[in-house]
Amino acid sequence: MFTVPLPAVTTALASASEGAAGGDLLSRLFWLLPVMLLAGKFSGELFERIKQPAVLGELIVGALLGGSVLGIIPTAAGDPLTELVQILAELGVVVLLFEIGVETDIKQMFRVGVGALAVATVGVVLPFLLGFLYWASPLVTERFNLVSNVTTAIFVGATLTATSVGITARVMTDLHALRSVEGQLVIGAAVIDDVMGLVILGIVTALVGGSHVGVLEIGRSVLFAVGFLAAALAVGFALAPKIFSLIDKMQVRGVLLVSAFAFALIVASLANMVGLAMIVGAYAAGLILSGTNQFDVIHNRIKPVSDIFTPIFFLSIGAQIDVRLLNPFVAENQPVLAIGLVLLLIAVLGKFAAGYAAFWKQYNRVGVGIGMIPRGEVGLIFANIGLMNGVLSREVFSAVLLMVIGTTFLTPPILKVAFVRGGTTDPSTGEPEPEAA
Amino acid sequence: MFTVPLPAVTTALASASEGAAGGDLLSRLFWLLPVMLLAGKFSGELFERIKQPAVLGELIVGALLGGSVLGIIPTAAGDPLTELVQILAELGVVVLLFEIGVETDIKQMFRVGVGALAVATVGVVLPFLLGFLYWASPLVTERFNLVSNVTTAIFVGATLTATSVGITARVMTDLHALRSVEGQLVIGAAVIDDVMGLVILGIVTALVGGSHVGVLEIGRSVLFAVGFLAAALAVGFALAPKIFSLIDKMQVRGVLLVSAFAFALIVASLANMVGLAMIVGAYAAGLILSGTNQFDVIHNRIKPVSDIFTPIFFLSIGAQIDVRLLNPFVAENQPVLAIGLVLLLIAVLGKFAAGYAAFWKQYNRVGVGIGMIPRGEVGLIFANIGLMNGVLSREVFSAVLLMVIGTTFLTPPILKVAFVRGGTTDPSTGEPEPEAA
Repeated sequence: MFTVPLPAVTTALASASEGAAGGDLLSRLFWLLPVMLLAGKFSGELFERIKQPAVLGELIVGALLGGSVLGIIPTAAGDPLTELVQILAELGVVVLLFEIGVETDIKQMFRVGVGALAVATVGVVLPFLLGFLYWASPLVTERFNLVSNVTTAIFVGATLTATSVGITARVMTDLHALRSVEGQLVIGAAVIDDVMGLVILGIVTALVGGSHVGVLEIGRSVLFAVGFLAAALAVGFALAPKIFSLIDKMQVRGVLLVSAFAFALIVASLANMVGLAMIVGAYAAGLILSGTNQFDVIHNRIKPVSDIFTPIFFLSIGAQIDVRLLNPFVAENQPVLAIGLVLLLIAVLGKFAAGYAAFWKQYNRVGVGIGMIPRGEVGLIFANIGLMNGVLSREVFSAVLLMVIGTTFLTPPILKVAFVRGGTTDPSTGEPEPEAA
Repeated sequence: MFTVPLPAVTTALASASEGAAGGDLLSRLFWLLPVMLLAGKFSGELFERIKQPAVLGELIVGALLGGSVLGIIPTAAGDPLTELVQILAELGVVVLLFEIGVETDIKQMFRVGVGALAVATVGVVLPFLLGFLYWASPLVTERFNLVSNVTTAIFVGATLTATSVGITARVMTDLHALRSVEGQLVIGAAVIDDVMGLVILGIVTALVGGSHVGVLEIGRSVLFAVGFLAAALAVGFALAPKIFSLIDKMQVRGVLLVSAFAFALIVASLANMVGLAMIVGAYAAGLILSGTNQFDVIHNRIKPVSDIFTPIFFLSIGAQIDVRLLNPFVAENQPVLAIGLVLLLIAVLGKFAAGYAAFWKQYNRVGVGIGMIPRGEVGLIFANIGLMNGVLSREVFSAVLLMVIGTTFLTPPILKVAFVRGGTTDPSTGEPEPEAA
């Protein structure tokens, strides 16, 4: 008579169902989430008070809560909570990249255009080449007895490319230097950087997808990645303003935010289908919506969602750090620390040199170069994919994490010195403003 | 050397990991969510345009997407996506009840105080008694040949008690009648109703928890439920304003929202520990934060989160409706439809009578009674728990859903007529205002 399968009852609504697996998973999640969120925010606050970016606090507290220390954030592969946290973390990074896309001022990017493109290109190519050459050199293969092939070297190079636009933007805001020529250059270049990094992400993702990697495969994946992004942006910029004007006329509560969020998930899923990472699609979705008249409303409303879910991503990334590897008195750890320091050096020097790339313009070159140093989510994502696919060993993954943490730690204090000494440049007159920061 | 278990890599970051179960689950979720969200919002819009509440559109589109029709929203017990959607749905209803708690104006409740308490009490006791007596009567046991015992009768009664404060508030807002005496009475009574309903929820949850139910067990669970709520509210109202003033002084992005959200999850988990439903805790957490100076900021920022997650709850509730049961030409369906109509009649009459409860005050009694009619999430949750624990059969569950859908359908049009004909009452003068709505 009633042929419907047993209904998907919300098993954990009542404590009476606690025995069921679903209820148990839910109640574990409902204890874990507040611990992660509060620990993340409070450490973020602490780090901002000591003039460091909040994301650094989240990474570090994630490491403390993770499998190698307290074991509160689950990292065991068999635990369903591990998978659930990963899915929420992925939702977090998708929302973050979507948000960064929406807040991108494409017009401002065009204004500093060629200069930012030069800074971005040098800042991507140089660290990539240095990283690739270092990994392909006997320095690594002979001294540390590690596997070194072209794919691994490309991955190591890739982790060094993308400036973390979030961290940079926050640091420039704190120095009240966002509207200077230097601020525009750094943000513009960081955004272009991000796009370049995401194209590289598409390539390296395709690289580990097929076991045999030839020029044809790389060419095809580049074509796929660039083609999808170009098509999505072209169609999106043409249609999204009209569609979202119509949606804006709808009256049901939250329809604009929910439609924008659904759009981000759809483009993320499409990107995933053509072989790109989901965050590439989410970022593209954000860029598309930055061109609508509703972008500020969408941005304001996606922020609280991002506030809650983004820290889950950084905490769970941090949870993967094996902090025992940082002990320099253990002989086995010394390769990780040594490689991490070399990568950090490459990361700093590569972006520092990029500061000189727009040589025809007048600006504080040291300030711009240092402003480009912070690495963040994109580098960590590369490292994650490499680790997951066996391209990067756990040592190299940890060394990349050291590099990211190092750049994030170093930048704020030395950036402050660079702008206090070198000043900023007025965007309307082109004249130096000695009284900066 | 590296003893850490294989890391909880975010398996689905790249398409390369699509083969893994986690990646597959994630990409299925990333297709399902936009479909659910867009279908939910667009049907909500459609229903608002035809002067019906949006939540009704979400329930109906959920039924269409659910297992008995299109099968897009998974309801099969073995599918991990089913569990994932349930967890997101639970997050949605927790956020909704938290939001309703935060937006409660406790002072306003006290102002209409005794009147609202009278309306609420009659509106809870009368439908409960009528539902209980109907179920305990030979009308059901003999005519429909259904199981009828005290526990089932209590459950049926309980599903009829709580007015859906969300639906009522939205309908009153649409009629611009929120600030009238009638509006205050309805909202105040609906809130008290909700608290009473949640205490009943605690009781019925405990009822199905133990197989032998005696006066002692019921007494203990009432004591637990009321004791926990009283203690949480007392401690919360004393400490929360101070704690959240301190948190408000913190500067890291989103700290106020994230702390409030974490607080809601903690109180929900604590409630769950003492045998209450999580939403009871979430609602109490919201009530507590409604007394802080930061309540408006918290309310504004939890709304977008609620916009995204709440529809998932109503859609997945709707997905459990077996629409084939609504066909009156199938003989087996006739009991469901007959019981549903009787429950609807009880639901309407019980609340209509409650409109007369504050007999010493002057106000539009018909308007208040009709304003109390909409049932919603709490009734559905009771029905869910009953279904899950085998206390309610699938027929009765479907009949309760019919009752909820019926009340939600009926109220807006007849409420409009009641206020256009009977007018509202000015709260400062106590005089009738004939020009209402």
